[in-house]
This record gives sequence, C-alpha cells and structure tokens, in this order.
Amino acid sequence: MGSTDRKVNFNAGPGLLPREVIEEVRENLLSLGSSGVGVMEHSHRGKEFVAVLEAAEAGCRDLLGLNDEWAVLFLSGGASTQFYMAPMNFLNGGTANYLDTGDWSAKAIKEAQRFGTVHIAASSKAEKYVRIPSGPLDEAPGAVYTHFTSNNTIYGTQWRQEPEAKSPLICDASSDIMSRPVALDKYAMIYAGAQKNLGPAGVTLVVVRKDFAASGRKDIPTMLRYTTHIEKESCFNTPPCLPIYVMALVFKWLAKKGGLEGIEKHNEAKAKVLYDCLDGSAFWTTPVEKASRSLMNVVWRLPSEELEKKLVADASAAGFHGIKGHRNVGGLRASIYNAMELADVERFVAFLKSWEKANG
Amino acid sequence: MGSTDRKVNFNAGPGLLPREVIEEVRENLLSLGSSGVGVMEHSHRGKEFVAVLEAAEAGCRDLLGLNDEWAVLFLSGGASTQFYMAPMNFLNGGTANYLDTGDWSAKAIKEAQRFGTVHIAASSKAEKYVRIPSGPLDEAPGAVYTHFTSNNTIYGTQWRQEPEAKSPLICDASSDIMSRPVALDKYAMIYAGAQKNLGPAGVTLVVVRKDFAASGRKDIPTMLRYTTHIEKESCFNTPPCLPIYVMALVFKWLAKKGGLEGIEKHNEAKAKVLYDCLDGSAFWTTPVEKASRSLMNVVWRLPSEELEKKLVADASAAGFHGIKGHRNVGGLRASIYNAMELADVERFVAFLKSWEKANG
Repeated sequence: MGSTDRKVNFNAGPGLLPREVIEEVRENLLSLGSSGVGVMEHSHRGKEFVAVLEAAEAGCRDLLGLNDEWAVLFLSGGASTQFYMAPMNFLNGGTANYLDTGDWSAKAIKEAQRFGTVHIAASSKAEKYVRIPSGPLDEAPGAVYTHFTSNNTIYGTQWRQEPEAKSPLICDASSDIMSRPVALDKYAMIYAGAQKNLGPAGVTLVVVRKDFAASGRKDIPTMLRYTTHIEKESCFNTPPCLPIYVMALVFKWLAKKGGLEGIEKHNEAKAKVLYDCLDGSAFWTTPVEKASRSLMNVVWRLPSEELEKKLVADASAAGFHGIKGHRNVGGLRASIYNAMELADVERFVAFLKSWEKANG
Repeated sequence: MGSTDRKVNFNAGPGLLPREVIEEVRENLLSLGSSGVGVMEHSHRGKEFVAVLEAAEAGCRDLLGLNDEWAVLFLSGGASTQFYMAPMNFLNGGTANYLDTGDWSAKAIKEAQRFGTVHIAASSKAEKYVRIPSGPLDEAPGAVYTHFTSNNTIYGTQWRQEPEAKSPLICDASSDIMSRPVALDKYAMIYAGAQKNLGPAGVTLVVVRKDFAASGRKDIPTMLRYTTHIEKESCFNTPPCLPIYVMALVFKWLAKKGGLEGIEKHNEAKAKVLYDCLDGSAFWTTPVEKASRSLMNVVWRLPSEELEKKLVADASAAGFHGIKGHRNVGGLRASIYNAMELADVERFVAFLKSWEKANG
C-alpha cells in the first residue's frame, strides 16, 4: 500500500496537486462530509454534488473576476477536444487567426483547418519555437477570433502578456491557467485541461462569453455546442464529478494563496530561483529567449545527452521526480506549476549546484 | 471532515463503488505504491500510470473474453459522446437500425439522425417503455449496424438477451456493463459510461472490433476517430487517469467475485430478493412486464405520491439512500448495481416490509 512520503514532482502534466487538497479528497472518498455516500458515488443531480459544482463555479468566478456575461463550464475530453470544438462552433467556413508557438498550437491549427480558413498571424516555427513571436500580428481581415497557446510546455515559452488582436482571443491556457491575472476584456474564451494547474486529468475548464457562445453553430451534435452546456450548467450528461470536486478544492486553495495576484508572485519567485541558478553557470544552457521564458516549465540542456540522462537518474534518486525533457525535444524540464512550493525549488537548486560540482 | 459510516446507496448513477476499491484509492492518493507521487499526479506516459492502463485493459479483456480482434478504449465524454461519435464514424449517410426502449435510446437516435438514416427497428414507446420489444426486429435492408440500450435505468427494463439482428450490434451498456456475460460474436461495439458498474464518472469504456473501427470515416476530427485512440492506446491526449485507475481496481474486484458468471449470479440473487418482496403484496405496484425486468434498476410505485415521498424520506433516515424514481417518471427506484451487497438488499427488504406494516 502507498505511503505518504512524497517526492518533489516536476511532471509536466498530469502534475502535482497541493497536499492539503489531496488530503481533503482522501477524507471524503468514503463519505462526502457526513452524507454517508462517497464523493465519487453521489448523484450529479443530488444536493451534495450540486453544492460541489456551485462551489467550483463560484471559486472560478471569484479568481478570474467573471461577471454574468461569462459562462463557466466543466467539460471533458481535454484541450484536444477544444481544438476541434471551438472551430466547429465558431469558424463555420470563415477565417480565424492562429498563433503558432509550438506543438500544441500546431495541433489546434490542424483540427481547425477542417472548419474554415486558418490564417497563421504569427509563428516562431522557423526558430524552432525558442521564443514567442514579437511585433504586431499579421491579422487576416474579418477574422472571427485569434487563437493562441498562452504557455508552451514542450518548449518552455510563455506569452508575457496577451497578444494584441482586433478579433477576440480564444486561448488554450492548459499549462498556465490561473497562474497569474488575465486581461479578460481581450478574450472570447479561455480553455484549459485541468491536469497542470487545476486538478486531475479528466475535466476541462472552459470560460466563455455567453454572447460569443450564442453565436456558435446549431447544426452540430448537442454535446458539441457550448450553448448546451451553458443551458444545462455542465450537467447535460453526467460530468466528471471527482475531477470537478478536486478542482473546487484547488480553487479554494488558490484563494487562500491570495488569488491570481498572490499566486503570480509565488510563481515569479520560484521561476527566478531556478532561472538564476541556470544563468549562473555556463554548465547549464537555456535555449529559450529570456523575454519568452515560461514561469511554468523551465527547460535547459547539459553539455551531453549522457550527462542529461545521469542528472535525471540522480535527481530521481534524490527525490526530484519528472525532470526529463519532452520526448520531442530532449534535454531537461522542471515544471513548477502553482502547487510547487518555493522551498522545494530551492532544495532542487541546491541539489543542482552540488551536482554540478560533482559532474561539471 | 467525512466519516467512514456509509449509507446503502441505491443511486442510479453515479452509483456505489465497492468499499475495498475506495479504500485502495485512498491509500494511493498521496503516493501510488511506493512511487512517492500520487495516483492523480503521475504522468500518463510514465511507467507507473502505463502499468495502471495495462492493468485496466487486461482486466477488461479477461472479464469480457476479448481477443486481439477487439480494442479496449478508455475515452471521455460519457455515453452521450458515443451517441454522436458512433454514427459520425460509421453511419456516413447510410442506414442503421435503432431500437427505442427509453429516453437514452431516444437521445442516441436524435444524435444519429444528423449522420444518416435512422430506422426504428423496434420500439416500446407506445407502451411507455414498460417492456422490451419482443418478436423479430423490423430491420432496414443494408443497415450498417443495430444500436440498442441493453438496460434502461429510468424505466427499469433490460434486454434478457441480445436482440437478433442481421447487422452487428452497437450497444449502450452504460447501466449493465459487466453485470453478466455477453454474446460477443453479435457485437461490433459496446460502450458504457463508467459511473454505474465500472467506476466513477469521467471515463467511458469502449470495446470495439478493430476491423469495424477501421471502417470509420477519416475526414472527421482526430479525437473523434476510434482508430486514433486504438493507435495511441487511449493516450492520444491525456486520458482521465484517476477514473481509469478506479476502473482497473473494479475489474480486479470483479475477477475476485467470479467474473461475469459470478457477478450475474450475485445480481440475480439480489434482484430476486427485491422483486419477491414487491410481488408479495398488492401494496407495491411494479409497472414493468416481468420478462423485461431489469436486474440493475428496480422500479415500483405506491398507492399515492404522498406515500412515495414518505418512503423516500423514511428510507433515507434509515440509511437507505437514493430510492426516488427518475424525475421523468416519478415513483421509486432502487439501483442494485454490481457493487451492491446482497445483505444490504435483504436489510432494505426487511425495512420495506416493516414500513408496509406501519403505512400500508
């Protein structure tokens, strides 16, 4: 049976969750509160789970500052479902701007192309995605929306602020959702798979302007219309109840951390500690342009792949889990999502420094 | 915080889970085995979760007796996603038979109509769904498949055996999957939302013949092709990891119960105890034709709605949760899925008998 000793988890996703959240889940698995029925076993239409759903929605609204013009949806199928669901609803033979900043952007582009014209308004593909495109976008006239990936887990880049576009933004924020405040007025929709900053895999948060959702096509499957889920308050069919419950607890934890302003400071402090270490010696190489660095996924290289492999193994033995880079790019990656503690990053940096002495 | 005292949970879905399964989940939330990383926090591509996925697939294959001609997929979006995904893949302007035995069949029919011709080959709608259609189906010539709902949670009916059709069966088995053996050779595909017999809400089991999957359309979103998920072994994108883990544990539990033959005997014994009680007094009315009675969802009525309301409240106070009938039909319903213990049904029957004496 499992122990309660935990490694420092740098996984890129699914990623770590706050320990206090997991402990609260444990306490409610056999019986949600004093209901006598476990949190996985309640009817999604019963008062106990309805309260969970309401808490999740209220937590999300408070953190992002969403008014009634916005809907909060708890869907399934991951961001990969949004890659086709958004253009299926909104593109409808028209044109949309897509900003190509990595593999996930490229996947969104591929799925959108079935539903209309995808105009690449910015791309860093030619530079192997080591930076976020700068300068004004090359926008298509009359674009219905502008789609971008706010943070790129594989390449370790992040938009420091929202791109400036004439059409409303649709954002895949899977890997930096709620890691910092957002300029809501620029967006029509933000979506995020939960498994990095919000909860376990299995639920996708979608916040969407209700008027934008209403502009979507009606002649598509009922499950694929945003308006269906708005009308049915995420209960058109049985939603992923446990992942939503965990997300509600994460929202509560985030509020205690000072909301998005508080967590942003926390995230900046963690990233600084790690980037400072990597910048402090020529032994480590950071491929990403400094202005494009992600505060969520820190990527770096060593002089050889052998050394990289050794670092992954030695780190694991020392209790630091999941620092192998994505298989598409190699190298090393430490994902330091919201739930990562500053003290754990500091311990990791101390480990890196001593490892450099031994192996550099 | 939650206690560990549990009510007898007759919810129609999400439904109860075996206590030993929940306890094993609890033990692995902070650390899966000795890995130091909780089961919700492992990468879906890491060896620990890959082992979970393999155990889930192997468990499913053993229980259903699936050979290599079959694929086992762990998808998301519930049965409601299969309502459109199956016809989107396979109907393609052709004709399919649909058997209309209740609200869920009707929903599947509605979504299929976007993709071709839906031929109603049997229906009990005119009889308000109180029985399963008998006699030969009125099949459309050249039908691509025949879709049916094996068990109808709302009306409390169940196909005693598979319908005889010339085209391969596609079955929504959400509410009786793995409650008894199936005649696999009649099927092209079986799908089931997990939240009744297999696990928590958030994962959908799909078993599909590989040759049938390969016949599906290619010009649809990548996520909506069964072949995508077969090629990527349910990891085209991040799957719902925790629900899959719970399902793997449920499969292990089912194997210990004697597999599908064992659980069928268990289910027959439970249903007999409850139906015998309801048949034993004119105080209780069972609307469903006897030959069509569900072994999973037992529905009945009392002489008045006031008495029904009182029974729901008194049962709840006595520790019997969730016996209110579906809002579309009213009355009473006890869902006695795989994880329901015979002793709990016997205790409930004793309660019903004493309640009848006091209120009859």
